[in-house]
Amino acid sequence: MDGVQKGRAKPPVVVILGAGFGGLFATRALSGKSVDVLLVDRNNFHTFTPLLYQVATSALEPGEIAYPVRPIFRGHNNVRFLLGNVISIDHAAKLITVLVSGKAQQVEYDYLIIATGSAPTYFGNHNFRPHSFELRTLQDAIYLRNHVLSLFEEAVWLEEGAARKALLTIVVVGGGPTGLETAGAVYELYNHVLSQEYDHPNLQARVILVEQADHLLRPYPPKLQQSALKQVESLGVEVMLGCKVTDVKKTHIELNGNARIETHTLIWAAGMKGSSVSELLGVALTRASLIPVEPTMQVSGVSNVYAVGDIAYLQDSEDRAYPMLIPVAQQQGTLAARNILSNIRGEAAIAFEYKSRGIMATIGRSRAVAWIYHRFMLTGWLAWLAWLGLHLIMLLGFRNRLNVFVNWVWNYLTYDRSIRLILPINTKQTNARNKSPDEG
Amino acid sequence: MDGVQKGRAKPPVVVILGAGFGGLFATRALSGKSVDVLLVDRNNFHTFTPLLYQVATSALEPGEIAYPVRPIFRGHNNVRFLLGNVISIDHAAKLITVLVSGKAQQVEYDYLIIATGSAPTYFGNHNFRPHSFELRTLQDAIYLRNHVLSLFEEAVWLEEGAARKALLTIVVVGGGPTGLETAGAVYELYNHVLSQEYDHPNLQARVILVEQADHLLRPYPPKLQQSALKQVESLGVEVMLGCKVTDVKKTHIELNGNARIETHTLIWAAGMKGSSVSELLGVALTRASLIPVEPTMQVSGVSNVYAVGDIAYLQDSEDRAYPMLIPVAQQQGTLAARNILSNIRGEAAIAFEYKSRGIMATIGRSRAVAWIYHRFMLTGWLAWLAWLGLHLIMLLGFRNRLNVFVNWVWNYLTYDRSIRLILPINTKQTNARNKSPDEG
Repeated sequence: MDGVQKGRAKPPVVVILGAGFGGLFATRALSGKSVDVLLVDRNNFHTFTPLLYQVATSALEPGEIAYPVRPIFRGHNNVRFLLGNVISIDHAAKLITVLVSGKAQQVEYDYLIIATGSAPTYFGNHNFRPHSFELRTLQDAIYLRNHVLSLFEEAVWLEEGAARKALLTIVVVGGGPTGLETAGAVYELYNHVLSQEYDHPNLQARVILVEQADHLLRPYPPKLQQSALKQVESLGVEVMLGCKVTDVKKTHIELNGNARIETHTLIWAAGMKGSSVSELLGVALTRASLIPVEPTMQVSGVSNVYAVGDIAYLQDSEDRAYPMLIPVAQQQGTLAARNILSNIRGEAAIAFEYKSRGIMATIGRSRAVAWIYHRFMLTGWLAWLAWLGLHLIMLLGFRNRLNVFVNWVWNYLTYDRSIRLILPINTKQTNARNKSPDEG
Repeated sequence: MDGVQKGRAKPPVVVILGAGFGGLFATRALSGKSVDVLLVDRNNFHTFTPLLYQVATSALEPGEIAYPVRPIFRGHNNVRFLLGNVISIDHAAKLITVLVSGKAQQVEYDYLIIATGSAPTYFGNHNFRPHSFELRTLQDAIYLRNHVLSLFEEAVWLEEGAARKALLTIVVVGGGPTGLETAGAVYELYNHVLSQEYDHPNLQARVILVEQADHLLRPYPPKLQQSALKQVESLGVEVMLGCKVTDVKKTHIELNGNARIETHTLIWAAGMKGSSVSELLGVALTRASLIPVEPTMQVSGVSNVYAVGDIAYLQDSEDRAYPMLIPVAQQQGTLAARNILSNIRGEAAIAFEYKSRGIMATIGRSRAVAWIYHRFMLTGWLAWLAWLGLHLIMLLGFRNRLNVFVNWVWNYLTYDRSIRLILPINTKQTNARNKSPDEG
């Protein structure tokens, strides 16, 4: 520790909230520097969120897209990790309170970086949520996997009819990358994998993708939007454009105030807002609970607090908000860290400039769209290969990459999904501490 | 289906309870034959129980030791699978009741094979169970993994002292293979992996293995018992022989009625009894709730009901009960199936003869004992390699084998355990259907 401090007085303390892409890149930029870093997260692992839908659809293991935080900063003695939930931020006293193993602990900071990301929003329709499935956390993905596999086990024993049809109807709301990918993957899981194991020729699932706008993939050029629509429809997914969900119940949903669809599965991928940590800060937020920041990533009006990634609201030179994308979060995290180091040295802060290499979305086997450097358009097989390669590279950890690669090759060659486990740990507690004595 | 039935009348229905080793081998022996097979399990997957302790200690993914049941019998049209819990058996009416998605369903059978295995027993000390951890199901393993990793995250922020020492004390009860393997793996996880990421020289965990007898590994020859003791002690595990657990509380246990050990973690691997399904049958059971069977695997007094594997009680020619081992279950499952086919054809049943290739137990990195064909003794590195190879071969599914192999090589080379995820799905429900609206 003394070596790191280089004979100075106690180094400044930087607390980073969230071990997502923004938080990790900020921590990385500060590791080995003359600051004491405390990284706080509610999980002991980093989640590779772009592949959550593959966990939900039995293609990958949860552990293959999650990477424990501690080993990432092994050997960097100025980085510590605290597992807990932030429950208050007092920016006047430069103090946060973290709930650790049920006990509230206070932590002082000199600089704070908020990188807790985003959460689904129902745009005020709170009653939709109890009957909706989300894909924001690893738990969400496992929960959806349990549900989707259980429905099939139930449907297989029913005669053809309305009840079975309802079980085999899955509605995905939101025509962005998450909605598109999830709809495609669920369709393939049901109709290319599960249905192969039964003699019922009509055990075909219906997957419906609902989008309020009249096109998919809002920020993409029209040509790619049309290609995505064509590709997802050619797979077998029904796409309903210009269509709004107006009610969600346990066994049905309502569209546009009149059309009713019988379903037990509504996957909500329609909108994101700032994580609830933003509300602890006590500053004015945007309508989507985002924290307005200066181009230096400093929270407007609170100069030693920074916000980066999904939770930060910043507009580019053309007054468009930066999108909730991983590279944005990574670059903002790194910049916030560098600006803190500059501030300590008394140097000027640098303004954020986003360097984008493009955007891409996958739809299913050999189906994808990519807009490389916002110039070159790829569709179909080539875009899909590019998507696979990029996501493999982005995954943390060689072991994870190798295992994901093995599973992808395996799934591709066999048309199988191997991780088809219903682990009922979500709905009831089956562990030792909760069994009744007579159960065993 | 008609092809399978070969023009006969409705073929006899064989219901098999449990997709463990006994149930799977019975199903396999009946697939493609002139019977209708219904395999029933409470999980949609088969669990490779010998590696549960590796899931609990972050070495393997849950999905790597679990294999979905349906694909195993893909292409065999006479095998169907029902996901549910058996809640009653009426052997007079040849009828079982299964709880499927919360609804009770009755299933008629001509032949029944009970293969639901075993469950931990506390020998009447029901009050031990709420504070004990078990390693019988995949859920148990994930729950123990969460607990063990959480303790470390808590301990790391405590000053040296009694509270931290209690968190870092793990007691394993039972000197059989499961206890030995778990004690060794927990020791390695704490003291070779987790502790490497901290500067605290005293963040050393204490792992205690408690066994009532005066030696480990009861059925092994004394030479291997002594070798196992030496190997596990050389690793760093404290072994307490001739020692009995007399009380278990949340934060301490009591040994021999007087010695008290402060610990939050008691792992119970001390004894097994028949699964609770045995009690549904209405026949006299052994003291350990096992079902007495004839050498033909038929339940004594109920000729069309068979019991195989851990749940069956059968003695060999020297009046010793067959042990609860995987090969015993597999061979009994196959035999029960063959005897059912003989019965249908009016042929005589065959008596069980166990063909054993020996027993082996692993202790940790390069540490194991093996008694090949009950003649050749191996210890240390060679026994460990034999153990690894055998378990890799026994795993179901090429993908599982490949992934387990990758993880084992990875863990061996890096001294790491990569699957260090605390997935708090056991202790609270974080999924969409259970969040309060204001949470996001």
